Amino acid sequence: MEHIGVGLIGTGYMGKCHTLAWANVRPVFGEGPATRLVHVAETSAELAAERAEALGFEKATGDWRQLIADPEVDVVSITTPNAFHPEMAIAALKAGKHVWCEKPMAPALADAEAMAKTARASGRVAILGYNYIQNPIIRHIGSLLDLGTIGPVNHIRLEMDEDFMASAKTPFSWKNEAAAGYGALDDFAVHPLSLITTLFGPLARVFAHMSKPYPDRPTFDGGRRTVENFDIASILFELASGIPGTLAVNRAAWGRKGRLAIQIFGSLGSILFDQERMNEVQLYTTTDECANQGFRTVLAAPPHAPYDRFVPAPGHGLGFNDLKTIECRELLNAIAGAPARVIDFDRGLQIEHAVHAMAASHEGQKWIEVGTP
Amino acid sequence: MEHIGVGLIGTGYMGKCHTLAWANVRPVFGEGPATRLVHVAETSAELAAERAEALGFEKATGDWRQLIADPEVDVVSITTPNAFHPEMAIAALKAGKHVWCEKPMAPALADAEAMAKTARASGRVAILGYNYIQNPIIRHIGSLLDLGTIGPVNHIRLEMDEDFMASAKTPFSWKNEAAAGYGALDDFAVHPLSLITTLFGPLARVFAHMSKPYPDRPTFDGGRRTVENFDIASILFELASGIPGTLAVNRAAWGRKGRLAIQIFGSLGSILFDQERMNEVQLYTTTDECANQGFRTVLAAPPHAPYDRFVPAPGHGLGFNDLKTIECRELLNAIAGAPARVIDFDRGLQIEHAVHAMAASHEGQKWIEVGTP
Amino acid sequence: MEHIGVGLIGTGYMGKCHTLAWANVRPVFGEGPATRLVHVAETSAELAAERAEALGFEKATGDWRQLIADPEVDVVSITTPNAFHPEMAIAALKAGKHVWCEKPMAPALADAEAMAKTARASGRVAILGYNYIQNPIIRHIGSLLDLGTIGPVNHIRLEMDEDFMASAKTPFSWKNEAAAGYGALDDFAVHPLSLITTLFGPLARVFAHMSKPYPDRPTFDGGRRTVENFDIASILFELASGIPGTLAVNRAAWGRKGRLAIQIFGSLGSILFDQERMNEVQLYTTTDECANQGFRTVLAAPPHAPYDRFVPAPGHGLGFNDLKTIECRELLNAIAGAPARVIDFDRGLQIEHAVHAMAASHEGQKWIEVGTP
Amino acid sequence: MEHIGVGLIGTGYMGKCHTLAWANVRPVFGEGPATRLVHVAETSAELAAERAEALGFEKATGDWRQLIADPEVDVVSITTPNAFHPEMAIAALKAGKHVWCEKPMAPALADAEAMAKTARASGRVAILGYNYIQNPIIRHIGSLLDLGTIGPVNHIRLEMDEDFMASAKTPFSWKNEAAAGYGALDDFAVHPLSLITTLFGPLARVFAHMSKPYPDRPTFDGGRRTVENFDIASILFELASGIPGTLAVNRAAWGRKGRLAIQIFGSLGSILFDQERMNEVQLYTTTDECANQGFRTVLAAPPHAPYDRFVPAPGHGLGFNDLKTIECRELLNAIAGAPARVIDFDRGLQIEHAVHAMAASHEGQKWIEVGTP
Repeated sequence: MEHIGVGLIGTGYMGKCHTLAWANVRPVFGEGPATRLVHVAETSAELAAERAEALGFEKATGDWRQLIADPEVDVVSITTPNAFHPEMAIAALKAGKHVWCEKPMAPALADAEAMAKTARASGRVAILGYNYIQNPIIRHIGSLLDLGTIGPVNHIRLEMDEDFMASAKTPFSWKNEAAAGYGALDDFAVHPLSLITTLFGPLARVFAHMSKPYPDRPTFDGGRRTVENFDIASILFELASGIPGTLAVNRAAWGRKGRLAIQIFGSLGSILFDQERMNEVQLYTTTDECANQGFRTVLAAPPHAPYDRFVPAPGHGLGFNDLKTIECRELLNAIAGAPARVIDFDRGLQIEHAVHAMAASHEGQKWIEVGTP
Repeated sequence: MEHIGVGLIGTGYMGKCHTLAWANVRPVFGEGPATRLVHVAETSAELAAERAEALGFEKATGDWRQLIADPEVDVVSITTPNAFHPEMAIAALKAGKHVWCEKPMAPALADAEAMAKTARASGRVAILGYNYIQNPIIRHIGSLLDLGTIGPVNHIRLEMDEDFMASAKTPFSWKNEAAAGYGALDDFAVHPLSLITTLFGPLARVFAHMSKPYPDRPTFDGGRRTVENFDIASILFELASGIPGTLAVNRAAWGRKGRLAIQIFGSLGSILFDQERMNEVQLYTTTDECANQGFRTVLAAPPHAPYDRFVPAPGHGLGFNDLKTIECRELLNAIAGAPARVIDFDRGLQIEHAVHAMAASHEGQKWIEVGTP
Repeated sequence: MEHIGVGLIGTGYMGKCHTLAWANVRPVFGEGPATRLVHVAETSAELAAERAEALGFEKATGDWRQLIADPEVDVVSITTPNAFHPEMAIAALKAGKHVWCEKPMAPALADAEAMAKTARASGRVAILGYNYIQNPIIRHIGSLLDLGTIGPVNHIRLEMDEDFMASAKTPFSWKNEAAAGYGALDDFAVHPLSLITTLFGPLARVFAHMSKPYPDRPTFDGGRRTVENFDIASILFELASGIPGTLAVNRAAWGRKGRLAIQIFGSLGSILFDQERMNEVQLYTTTDECANQGFRTVLAAPPHAPYDRFVPAPGHGLGFNDLKTIECRELLNAIAGAPARVIDFDRGLQIEHAVHAMAASHEGQKWIEVGTP
Repeated sequence: MEHIGVGLIGTGYMGKCHTLAWANVRPVFGEGPATRLVHVAETSAELAAERAEALGFEKATGDWRQLIADPEVDVVSITTPNAFHPEMAIAALKAGKHVWCEKPMAPALADAEAMAKTARASGRVAILGYNYIQNPIIRHIGSLLDLGTIGPVNHIRLEMDEDFMASAKTPFSWKNEAAAGYGALDDFAVHPLSLITTLFGPLARVFAHMSKPYPDRPTFDGGRRTVENFDIASILFELASGIPGTLAVNRAAWGRKGRLAIQIFGSLGSILFDQERMNEVQLYTTTDECANQGFRTVLAAPPHAPYDRFVPAPGHGLGFNDLKTIECRELLNAIAGAPARVIDFDRGLQIEHAVHAMAASHEGQKWIEVGTP
């Protein structure tokens, strides 16, 4: 029986999520190699051993380089903090491993570029964990666009909002430091960008405005510290295809928990989506009789592949973690040389470029062309 | 019995809407002067006579100057096409009449300025028909903001969308001519601006991007004609108070029929509203226990004045035309010298300035400060 | 100019609502006789005079028989408490007036039967104020059913809920007395019954269960008094056409403000409606492609007559009071001998019979055939 | 390392679902025994071998009795058609295995009683796959009820609807035979009953009405065959605690895909839920200020245990299959002798009794007391 050997570096939430994806991918899809959970790395040998037992890995190490050197490991899941991504991903690729790295690529653009360059040279598969694009409903939106159901698209609006920075009382943390990036742009904008670029292709230019709901935040020692980046960003953009749109991201939006709202307007209809109701899409078409036209709420169902691999009945719903299992299946496709719906390091780099262009636009108060890798 | 004499120029939909407001204002509110529908003007004496009978006016004329000269007329409702507003409003004010003029003020900024100047000099009440601000739910949002229920506001998003220009087959009309204005900015942006300025005060600066879903449209003679203005506009703004926000307007948005969506984010909660469900507001506050926090859908009800004047039970719903009756009541307040929730010609002029600043920003691709009257 | 003379007995909320309908019907519809508000009756001459001035009636009386004797009155709006309906309606009909009486007809079935008998003999129009059937969305549902859009109907569910009796602290009132009727059956069931019988025809048999959330309620003197009727009722029914369904009514349902929810299931689709969002209907049809099937939310719009008489643009919304204006227009149709969508006293009597059958079923714990007039 | 040996009989959708639950339960919860997928049984040795490889089981057999005899198997998942449940479950229990059997128990009540009796005598854990009760949102509803957040409950409404029998063209199948049970009662009513009995305790009496949208259905040989059971059922009920309610189930309800709607009314508030949006609950309480009361939409979040074991952030959503993982965790609790939220064979038998009482009520057209085991 064919199998694939998995190494996992980092066992926080995303590490658990990768583990579940590896455990589920074959039973869910009923195809592909069997998964062998070979090796897990953590910050200490003790922690690694403990996590290996909980997650079901065979070997454990406190030194991630040992994992990368393990000949039984075919693919490395990297779910450590962003700052570690470049070194680990580059080392894994150079050791001949495929790499499944969580997003975003790296705090510094130069590091992301080095990662992409290494991936290109390696002949290995290197993808990023942009799992929202794997939602069967998002795929269905892609099909609707391809089929011309709403005609040529002429306008797009996207929003991504959560509220973990919404309280003025939330203490200053590393997330508020300039070293952690621009703020909402890095945390959130990359996700809608993964959707935009998947559905519509690359951006041409952007204009951004960023703001802070609170100029400073309390510190744990009773003082206050100036917030160095931006919890809110609003962006106007034009795609390379000419379609204009807006993007608003806010990590201080009370009440929003996992909102990723999309509005797509075409010449024959419109499509609406919100990740908080990830098993639904709203579709308006002009083919309905005039008196009966309206947005129809379509529930995720077997015709929306690969929903059917999870549940055979419509309207029963996938969960957030299921998206990772689909992503894992696509990674296996890519490794097998088959067509795969993934965001590889090159496309990931495009997303990083767009983010940096937005920040430059805010700084310069002008439209900025989005660079290409 | 005290009464007020009404003159009406123009009997299209808005003329009917004013008539209903005048007929309903006293029975609904149970206070104020009795309304006497004195004089109606149309483009011909015959049409005026026909409309007088249908709408219940005593006198009819094909010459609006006769109506303005009528001593029995105390207040003039002007519901003609925008281009006629300046001449009629100025003449009415100079004749000592109060004026209730539909929005926007005038195609040319200079005319709007002249209207505002005349109004200031006249000692009469001159207001514009921005009826969305009269919705009891919008008033309630104002109360929530005043009470600090969601804390200081730090971000705003607005959208106004309809679909009457969404089809590529919709023939070129006067609305697509540059002479009719900038497009979606004039048709729609003024409405959210009336809400923003009522709830939050004036704008400081704007950055705009405008686009056309279709570069040309079919003409009735079988040809095609270049579209001269913009069905879509997307705007970033900063208020004078410092609050940043976004505004998107689109008159080619399939499926949107009367969307006017507002998202207000504060330090203690959030407020959502959509005019398509004009009898509801969604409120999120952090006072609820954590496990039970969520946006609550509050239905319009008697505590939201003046809903109670229309229906004594909650959740039964007002209609679009009812907003005009409330506006009429506020106009009567203003005439009586009482505090009134109205957009007078000076505030209307601020809105026009904001629209022109947006257009200038699109042209110049830079932030534009919003002028003041 | 043709006109109709209106008399109004009772000037509470429904009296105001009738007045607005009379004032608006001609300007809104642009057809039919001019309305003359002739005479208003209240419990005292002083109150009547005060209300005449507020509502715009010419004459006022403290004796409703004077109003009925007034030769200038053509039609009498009766909006007094239910117990007064029989005497007033019968007197008005015998005096040759048309009658527009609020629902329900009368506390006692015998009185309702006498009203219907008198109406039949009078040659005059006598209708009841079941205004929910006038909603353009409800009419559109009727059209969809007539057109076979959802195929033959095989199941119906209805609910009507409000919360004015939901608190245990709400003091005992006349509404809790057996003399006021069965409770939720009289207050609410009649409304869904007006919809059912309008859309589907009469009921054949019913099975009911009634309950009290609170066995007693506080009295104003500090004591407690046993509740004599039922705030909650749940009914199974079969229509004469054979369609089975359920009806649930609850006037103690916290959070429900004006819910009147309908679910209609047919062989080709389904229709959903809720009066709390009275400007929307949800339609599911099987003609959509399988992957795109869903309930579409259709907003009230000009194709849904007579919405267009109120607003020329879709999605702007009618209000609860507008339904009364439509009802008034239908009354005028009936008076003119034209086809009219009204619930006359005979159909009203059918509704009363159904309510009494429900109560009898609860009492006898068995299916009860619904009597016919 | 402690572990548990799993046997699985039947590898259809529910077999896959059990497999995923067994694979995920330890990584998700980070506690409990490691799972060993020991043995799978199918209708032939070949199929069993194929499924063992796809699902990751060690051994395969075409004879389920071999699986039950396997000393390495500690617990048996039974996911075969209902008719096989009694023989398999009883054999497994007698062999000293714990049993996790899909619902419902058995077509014949006597068989279900035998299963419960065997389970009681076995000293082993025997539970049924009523996974809807495992939804963290349903658990949260239970907590709200326990905490008295909406006060004592006085009325309940439940609906469960799908549309797989909605088309008249759907051919006659075994599901339409009387031998398959009563129809919607067996397919659907058991689910809401699992929720009712979990949240509120057992039923006291029921009154039911059943109907068929189509008297016959096409057969594959071009003929037609009379439908022998009922796609629609409507039930009135009273709980042993005295709370009255309604239950409506329909497997021919176009547009409903996985609706399981609950309305719970209490003296201090209300709770609404619909499985089609399984990550939300709507809560209305009277503690909010009057002008701000409304149903709040609470998204599933870490405070709603065990949501946090799947995702650490709110609003990201669990899927239908995740409920099975939670059920598996509860089964392990039961096996360990800890408190467990499960429906064991005794409680399952109560549900079967309720279903049979409903059918008897329909037949006898009278209230039927629900028997106890």
